[in-house]
Amino acid sequence: MSHTFTLRVYYEDTDMGGIVYHANFLRFIERARSEWVRDLGNDQNAMRDAGLVWVVHRIEADFRAPGRFDDVLTVRTEVQAVTPARLTLQQVVYRDEVELFRAQVTVVCMTTEGKPVRLPAEIRALLQ
Amino acid sequence: MSHTFTLRVYYEDTDMGGIVYHANFLRFIERARSEWVRDLGNDQNAMRDAGLVWVVHRIEADFRAPGRFDDVLTVRTEVQAVTPARLTLQQVVYRDEVELFRAQVTVVCMTTEGKPVRLPAEIRALLQ
Amino acid sequence: MSHTFTLRVYYEDTDMGGIVYHANFLRFIERARSEWVRDLGNDQNAMRDAGLVWVVHRIEADFRAPGRFDDVLTVRTEVQAVTPARLTLQQVVYRDEVELFRAQVTVVCMTTEGKPVRLPAEIRALLQ
Amino acid sequence: MSHTFTLRVYYEDTDMGGIVYHANFLRFIERARSEWVRDLGNDQNAMRDAGLVWVVHRIEADFRAPGRFDDVLTVRTEVQAVTPARLTLQQVVYRDEVELFRAQVTVVCMTTEGKPVRLPAEIRALLQ
Repeated sequence: MSHTFTLRVYYEDTDMGGIVYHANFLRFIERARSEWVRDLGNDQNAMRDAGLVWVVHRIEADFRAPGRFDDVLTVRTEVQAVTPARLTLQQVVYRDEVELFRAQVTVVCMTTEGKPVRLPAEIRALLQ
Repeated sequence: MSHTFTLRVYYEDTDMGGIVYHANFLRFIERARSEWVRDLGNDQNAMRDAGLVWVVHRIEADFRAPGRFDDVLTVRTEVQAVTPARLTLQQVVYRDEVELFRAQVTVVCMTTEGKPVRLPAEIRALLQ
Repeated sequence: MSHTFTLRVYYEDTDMGGIVYHANFLRFIERARSEWVRDLGNDQNAMRDAGLVWVVHRIEADFRAPGRFDDVLTVRTEVQAVTPARLTLQQVVYRDEVELFRAQVTVVCMTTEGKPVRLPAEIRALLQ
Repeated sequence: MSHTFTLRVYYEDTDMGGIVYHANFLRFIERARSEWVRDLGNDQNAMRDAGLVWVVHRIEADFRAPGRFDDVLTVRTEVQAVTPARLTLQQVVYRDEVELFRAQVTVVCMTTEGKPVRLPAEIRALLQ
């Protein structure tokens, strides 16, 4: 299962190096995760009203090539593993065929008070 | 009454123009407002627990000169007017004697549900 | 002449108030300006290679209603005035019919060294 | 060799979860790196004028506990390894004794055109 999300690089995303500020790749891949779960049928507002939120637990990120102003970038998101406790994704950002950024992201579910909980069964079902 | 707050410009604050990204001056002056109200004795966490938040209502901003990486900037905040409904501030950002940015900022008080309310009497007292 | 740009509100755009962080509306309207000038035929990368950049000179902004996570927002951009020295725009952000934010934005042209210059004739032509 | 940097969490750093937006920890640790290299005698503006920049190559990050508005956070930076090609750091963010975030960060040197180069000898000397 693979999900594709496209975005444009704006002025706000760049830094004085003339390229995308490194931490903004984490923003880009979170946008992709939000679009992906919505496409799957997971409404994060409803989930939140029910007292649960997604929380990033760990990220391993490789910065391979710079992104630039006006670039159209694609984020490809793939599920690597789903356990009762956590979801591991691979997310890669491309400009055309060039890989700019690659991350392995582990997310967990928590109550809005910050207590870790199992992934809800209906969400695990959506993911499979 | 005038309050002074100092900050450093980091990579994250700049854009591909090699200068501070314009919208980040609004972040800088909000940091200054947060430090200012804390210095006055207004704890925004406690205020929020009591169901009230500060909300920016209007900003008139002039961008006069660029900020740059590694600059040490000073934000000077002055009260211009306090009414039962709103607080108007003048906030100016300097590098040494050079004025980079100047804004007139109007803030109001709202409930955490977004309903406008009068400024609490104890906060008005702090401001005078 | 009116230009319309649509965006989604993501986690990164919100603050602890549960709404769009106020300064991020300035980012949203700059995205709209970038899309607008590209649509007009103004390539900001080429312009920059030619030694010129757009610089925000003044913003008057009214924050009228909160934006929220997952909202789809529309930015409507209209030219208010073009002079040899500057361009004044009105930019309004809506969620459906609700106006969230309204700004009058004055932008100027500068050399990449920060010297103010007249708007290039070909850009003025595009704007009329 | 260990370096300590302190920062305050502001509104801009939080998200609708009421906590520090995860990607902002990467900003916090970059501020710490900038302060650290300046303290060591490495002027990034001068380095840049000489055609070289620091570039983040890889980050492994663990998000252990939430940061909150008004928190005073400490970033502790330690060198893990220096080779001719790269510098590996461990950076940990604390609130008092509580560890919120931990990252292993690999940075490299590049020309301003993006070509990887060896760490300059004078910088390697500063690091040892």
